[in-house]
Amino acid sequence: MAVALTPPAREALLPVPGVKLGIACAGIRKADRKDLLLMTLAEGAVTAGLFTRNRFCAAPVQVCREHLTAGAPMRAIVVNTGNANAGTGERGLADARAICTEAARLTGVDAQQVLPFSTGVIMEPLPVERVLRGLPQCVTDLRGDNWLSAAEAIMTTDTVPKAASRRLRMGGREVTLTGIAKGAGMIHPDMATMLAFVATDAAMPAGLLRGMLAHACEQSFNAVTVDGDTSTNDSFVLAATGVSGARVEREDGAEYRALRDALTDLAVQLAQAIVRDGEGATKFITLRVEQGRSREECRKVAFAIAHSPLVKTAFFAGDPNPGRILAAVGYAGIDDLEVDSIELYLDEVRVATRGGRDPAYREPDGKRVMQRDEICVRVVLGRGSAAATVWTCDLSHEYVTINAEYRT
Amino acid sequence: MAVALTPPAREALLPVPGVKLGIACAGIRKADRKDLLLMTLAEGAVTAGLFTRNRFCAAPVQVCREHLTAGAPMRAIVVNTGNANAGTGERGLADARAICTEAARLTGVDAQQVLPFSTGVIMEPLPVERVLRGLPQCVTDLRGDNWLSAAEAIMTTDTVPKAASRRLRMGGREVTLTGIAKGAGMIHPDMATMLAFVATDAAMPAGLLRGMLAHACEQSFNAVTVDGDTSTNDSFVLAATGVSGARVEREDGAEYRALRDALTDLAVQLAQAIVRDGEGATKFITLRVEQGRSREECRKVAFAIAHSPLVKTAFFAGDPNPGRILAAVGYAGIDDLEVDSIELYLDEVRVATRGGRDPAYREPDGKRVMQRDEICVRVVLGRGSAAATVWTCDLSHEYVTINAEYRT
Repeated sequence: MAVALTPPAREALLPVPGVKLGIACAGIRKADRKDLLLMTLAEGAVTAGLFTRNRFCAAPVQVCREHLTAGAPMRAIVVNTGNANAGTGERGLADARAICTEAARLTGVDAQQVLPFSTGVIMEPLPVERVLRGLPQCVTDLRGDNWLSAAEAIMTTDTVPKAASRRLRMGGREVTLTGIAKGAGMIHPDMATMLAFVATDAAMPAGLLRGMLAHACEQSFNAVTVDGDTSTNDSFVLAATGVSGARVEREDGAEYRALRDALTDLAVQLAQAIVRDGEGATKFITLRVEQGRSREECRKVAFAIAHSPLVKTAFFAGDPNPGRILAAVGYAGIDDLEVDSIELYLDEVRVATRGGRDPAYREPDGKRVMQRDEICVRVVLGRGSAAATVWTCDLSHEYVTINAEYRT
Repeated sequence: MAVALTPPAREALLPVPGVKLGIACAGIRKADRKDLLLMTLAEGAVTAGLFTRNRFCAAPVQVCREHLTAGAPMRAIVVNTGNANAGTGERGLADARAICTEAARLTGVDAQQVLPFSTGVIMEPLPVERVLRGLPQCVTDLRGDNWLSAAEAIMTTDTVPKAASRRLRMGGREVTLTGIAKGAGMIHPDMATMLAFVATDAAMPAGLLRGMLAHACEQSFNAVTVDGDTSTNDSFVLAATGVSGARVEREDGAEYRALRDALTDLAVQLAQAIVRDGEGATKFITLRVEQGRSREECRKVAFAIAHSPLVKTAFFAGDPNPGRILAAVGYAGIDDLEVDSIELYLDEVRVATRGGRDPAYREPDGKRVMQRDEICVRVVLGRGSAAATVWTCDLSHEYVTINAEYRT
């Protein structure tokens, strides 16, 4: 029951020269489902990653950080679903390293050139031997046009595979970006989402790549929430193979801006797809907070609304209960907020002004907006010129069902 | 479906000399239900109050703050359910003042000696004329043994009235404390709960009374959460009539400590009753965080767990999914937390140690604990000697149903 989200067409996902993807059914948690992905990167590729700030970060996240700081260029990415390899202690680390070693052996690179990722249940031992046994199948399957299968192979409670492409021209050359993402619950990224991988065939120094990744992440994955739970495995990785020959040299150039904007646009689409497919989601909610003193305070207000179970259940019910939204604004932690200057809109309908209900507000107008599948809540703080946007979904019976039955 | 919570027996609620209570069915939201309470305090009573820190505090909360700072002693308390008179702007303030004026006229005191309270739907105009018309009925009904009806008259989505008494001897005299509280949703008190009123016939200067109230509040209402939503109307009021003749003079005396401990004990019982009757609650969860560097960081960790929808749905399912608890510990915002030193217990069963699953942990042991109605989650941080306890409940289908249908 994802909100206005359908699987991408296979042909809409553009191969990225220098990138190959191979998929396997490794039986990690369930039989006969795609659950293992190997992505290889051509020699010369540059890679950057952003990872969860959860202190209980998963074993593969720790190994990714090690490998990215060690300095050798990345040549392969391995992702399994069905088990997050998080809260697994020393054994989890050893398992993540064993996967890198085996993937390196099969693809002829060093273990330090492999990035491992896992997603699924937390705190259960990873059945590492199944991952190792599945890797040769992935190698056999390696192809450039395998992005849709790759998106399917990293799903957990996702109901729709999430993938998208962009194409632009840079310096007379054609440049491609294609990315995949997964995530539906435990979504309140603090750095990046559950898992997202974007590749491009543009060429770029590592420093520029990292800056571009951080910019895109801030606008996309760091602006969505499903349930306020920051995952142990959040990762957002960007690889630039350089195969197109189009090269980004300077942060203040037109090429950088064009590629950065295309990446941000793509990341926003993937991040929104995660919310649209949020566990049990029936509504897609945009929270727009304007006229704050800083972007940070606007985000605080937006996330307070987005995390309120009372607001989320009111959206599920299609009930215009703007008092719950105002209450969340009130406890967002902005100590000197003057409620008299605040306005609240549901799409085009102003429901509150000057600390209370808008005298012109009529309940049927609010009701009409709340029946929509996609709703924009706009809060005007009236105390500055900063703004922020956050996307979230409602809280439904289905959310409780999914999470009460997740492991059974 | 409150967790191990039954209505108190009428005779278990001890009258407090100097306090009378009158109830009416004023038809504020629904016909033929008790929805209006008038409490009168004898001349000489001293009163203290703690109120929500939500910036969108309700109109009656603003009037209460005004009246308590104006300095005249309080002689009456009026509480209506069915409408919170919050987010109602200037008209809301005028309505709250009109109630004080009418209650004052009927009881022969000044309007500034009346504290008004409202609870119910936010951002709808208060039907103030129904409150005014109901007040004379309350006056006719005034009695000392009306505490159970008073607890019933302030309920909203509560399924069980919440009230309790304590009796102690102080300086050879018998002293009584009786209190009532309400609240089931929008419960994450930041100062006090939705509404709680405690009266005693001890005598005390206002300064000592305020200190005692703050102490009890911190240990009770400020340590519970149902859904993380801080209400616009939270209020916790303590009135001391002095009629018993037992007088508390000094903060460092045995009388102060005895009364403070009895009040704290009573407030904890009322606060826990709110959680036990939390919207849709099927489990009562105690979160005990130990060996932290400060009480504040222990509370942060406890509330991160208590507010995680993933943890709460796992409790609803009776599923020992300790990974979700560890993930919440990890994102609680303690930057230098070393996960290797953390231990996690479900009642008597240790499930995690040194950053991962306890090697001795067996799933049936966790499952056995999770089947219980009352469960203690104990997190040992291993980095200091501070501790904190927080109480919460699970997140069930019934929570979604209640809040999706609240206004219909």
